[in-house]
Amino acid sequence: MKITGNAIIAQGGGPTAVINQSLVGAIQEMKKHPEIKEIYGALHGVRGIIEENFLDLRQASNENLEQVANTPCAALLSTRDKPDLEYCAKIFQIFKKHNIRYFYYIGGNDSSDTVRLVNEYAIKEQYEFKAFHIPKTIDNDLVINDHTPGFGSAAKFVAEAFMGANLETKALEGIYLGIVMGRHAGFLTAASALGRKDQTEGPHLIYLPERPFSIDSFLSDVQKVYDQYGRCVIAISEGITDENGMPIVAKLKENVTKDAHGNIELAGGELGDMLTKAIKDQLKIGRVRADTFGYLQRSFPGTVSDTDQKEARLAGQAAVKFSMMEDYQNGSVVIIRTKEYEIEYQLTELQNIAAKTKHMPEEFINQEGNNVTEAFIQYGLPLLGENFKKTTNIEAPLVNISK
Amino acid sequence: MKITGNAIIAQGGGPTAVINQSLVGAIQEMKKHPEIKEIYGALHGVRGIIEENFLDLRQASNENLEQVANTPCAALLSTRDKPDLEYCAKIFQIFKKHNIRYFYYIGGNDSSDTVRLVNEYAIKEQYEFKAFHIPKTIDNDLVINDHTPGFGSAAKFVAEAFMGANLETKALEGIYLGIVMGRHAGFLTAASALGRKDQTEGPHLIYLPERPFSIDSFLSDVQKVYDQYGRCVIAISEGITDENGMPIVAKLKENVTKDAHGNIELAGGELGDMLTKAIKDQLKIGRVRADTFGYLQRSFPGTVSDTDQKEARLAGQAAVKFSMMEDYQNGSVVIIRTKEYEIEYQLTELQNIAAKTKHMPEEFINQEGNNVTEAFIQYGLPLLGENFKKTTNIEAPLVNISK
Repeated sequence: MKITGNAIIAQGGGPTAVINQSLVGAIQEMKKHPEIKEIYGALHGVRGIIEENFLDLRQASNENLEQVANTPCAALLSTRDKPDLEYCAKIFQIFKKHNIRYFYYIGGNDSSDTVRLVNEYAIKEQYEFKAFHIPKTIDNDLVINDHTPGFGSAAKFVAEAFMGANLETKALEGIYLGIVMGRHAGFLTAASALGRKDQTEGPHLIYLPERPFSIDSFLSDVQKVYDQYGRCVIAISEGITDENGMPIVAKLKENVTKDAHGNIELAGGELGDMLTKAIKDQLKIGRVRADTFGYLQRSFPGTVSDTDQKEARLAGQAAVKFSMMEDYQNGSVVIIRTKEYEIEYQLTELQNIAAKTKHMPEEFINQEGNNVTEAFIQYGLPLLGENFKKTTNIEAPLVNISK
Repeated sequence: MKITGNAIIAQGGGPTAVINQSLVGAIQEMKKHPEIKEIYGALHGVRGIIEENFLDLRQASNENLEQVANTPCAALLSTRDKPDLEYCAKIFQIFKKHNIRYFYYIGGNDSSDTVRLVNEYAIKEQYEFKAFHIPKTIDNDLVINDHTPGFGSAAKFVAEAFMGANLETKALEGIYLGIVMGRHAGFLTAASALGRKDQTEGPHLIYLPERPFSIDSFLSDVQKVYDQYGRCVIAISEGITDENGMPIVAKLKENVTKDAHGNIELAGGELGDMLTKAIKDQLKIGRVRADTFGYLQRSFPGTVSDTDQKEARLAGQAAVKFSMMEDYQNGSVVIIRTKEYEIEYQLTELQNIAAKTKHMPEEFINQEGNNVTEAFIQYGLPLLGENFKKTTNIEAPLVNISK
């Protein structure tokens, strides 16, 4: 039996470069189904629901929607609100008030949990309701999913940044550290390797939160690479920890505070700054530079993966299609890889996604814990899209000169 | 009279995303002229000349060269060597030894000075010689030039980074600071405004090295914008100084050292970190984030301006064409804007470019010294190319709900 009523869609959590593709994919699919009457867009995620700030999305033109799809970040604006039971009850009351029968929430694992909780109220009150979670996150850390919409574009940014850094250290020598987002999952940091042509090219070393980080092994790794190539490009996840799970940045901070007998507040680039200092002081290498990418890759319009765009769009569309099937009342859309390279969209129960974190699997990390494997490259490269191009070295022989 | 002999080309200083376009433009033009025998590429700039490390560029295939043209950074590798008189004398001796009659050096104002000095030896020794400087720099600080190859692509990166930051603060609120390269000239920081659609959009404030920076005015500016829009996006040049020309970062460092009675070494992101702290402490605004772009935009492959690519290619070609004209013995290729938007390539004397720095003209900076003018937008926008696209907001009315 199909339900007739209004639909609402919202976006939550950190934005991505393609989250609006999912939004537009869902809106355009909703328009095809006469069961859906009004199409509301809640502003600022769940907050816009309880505050009843809805856009009337049927009045957005197709031309506008297509341009929005190609704009990064959340067109409906986002929120960091993480609804508890009471908050979810309030959401449900608003849904009843406005005869909202279809709820689509684009977000990470917290958003999936919100959908689950709201849906439980509907079941309890026997309110006919369909609720779907559409995945997105640049961290690529949703379980079951082969990968998540948003990751490919962020990964493309990171890969390209390291392609540039690799060329720069070749042209001008030295050591380069790039600090990449990702507190618990190392996928985005691992993406630094996706533009690499062979093992002589950077990043020569990659440190992920999945493996304990030791400053001594780090320094000895760097020395080894530097001795071999006269340069070294290093990708480091901001989330690296020691063998007890203590963040390295916290350890380093503590040391500095002790040294200075003062109360120093550190922020932003401190991990890069401190590893730079360690290399300079202990390895006596002069030219060391660290960049902290921060949030740049999250909503950067200039270098979006075309594959990621397409997949994000179809993920939004898939959620609405599932919601129109009698067999499905609720769920989270997941991306499953079926071939090299093809994917399909399936539906899993909301509780399977909520509050769980996927990590880099063992086979993607080398034994020494300082690089990724070929299996990761095979996994990640298709996600960067057709528009991802590797760099080219000049191919000409040296002139034979007797000096 | 035309000179017959060998040619050499090299790349110096900090790389750009399109410096290889100039290289390939020059090589392809050289191949058309039978006066030019061997085409050498010196590795690592002038250092490769005195070390006689030359590539035989006639043996690079057209296919390889076209791919190299689309690769950022210096394909012939670069150098930070700044030759003195003795070094230039050595260069000249190598040129004589290898019958090198044509010298093309792609670089900034230091490179132009090297070309000038080497050329003076040739004149003194009555050696028939043609020497040309091909401009490049992301800083856009070469005099006479309307703009320099490399700036457009770096400016596109900066504009896109701020378009993303603008969308993010809209979606999630808060204050965003982006610290941009450029010690003396503010063009690259000013480029943060090129994706802005109106005055409500970020960057709301822009601080350039051309105007003295005061922390008090800065904080009051930020408070004003925050009160009006509930958010604030700020672009700051790393080179900002106080009214006495003292770098702000040095001033801030000093204060911290005094506070902590210790010996703290700061690096990298300190300007952003400290301005963040000032906003948090003095304005009591919680959500403040700073990104330091560092060198990312210098060799980033993913977001190159197509206009910049074309112009860099033609700049390399123009240098070789000038060198084949009887009227010109040496000089620096300059880009002159003739219309909105058209450019032409002219030649100026080498000494006119060497060791001079162009700054943002007065009419590009607003009176308060905290933003750019419409004149700057008109100037800068064409340089970002046809492939630069602004972002789009969703256009749908709010649903009229009685709450």
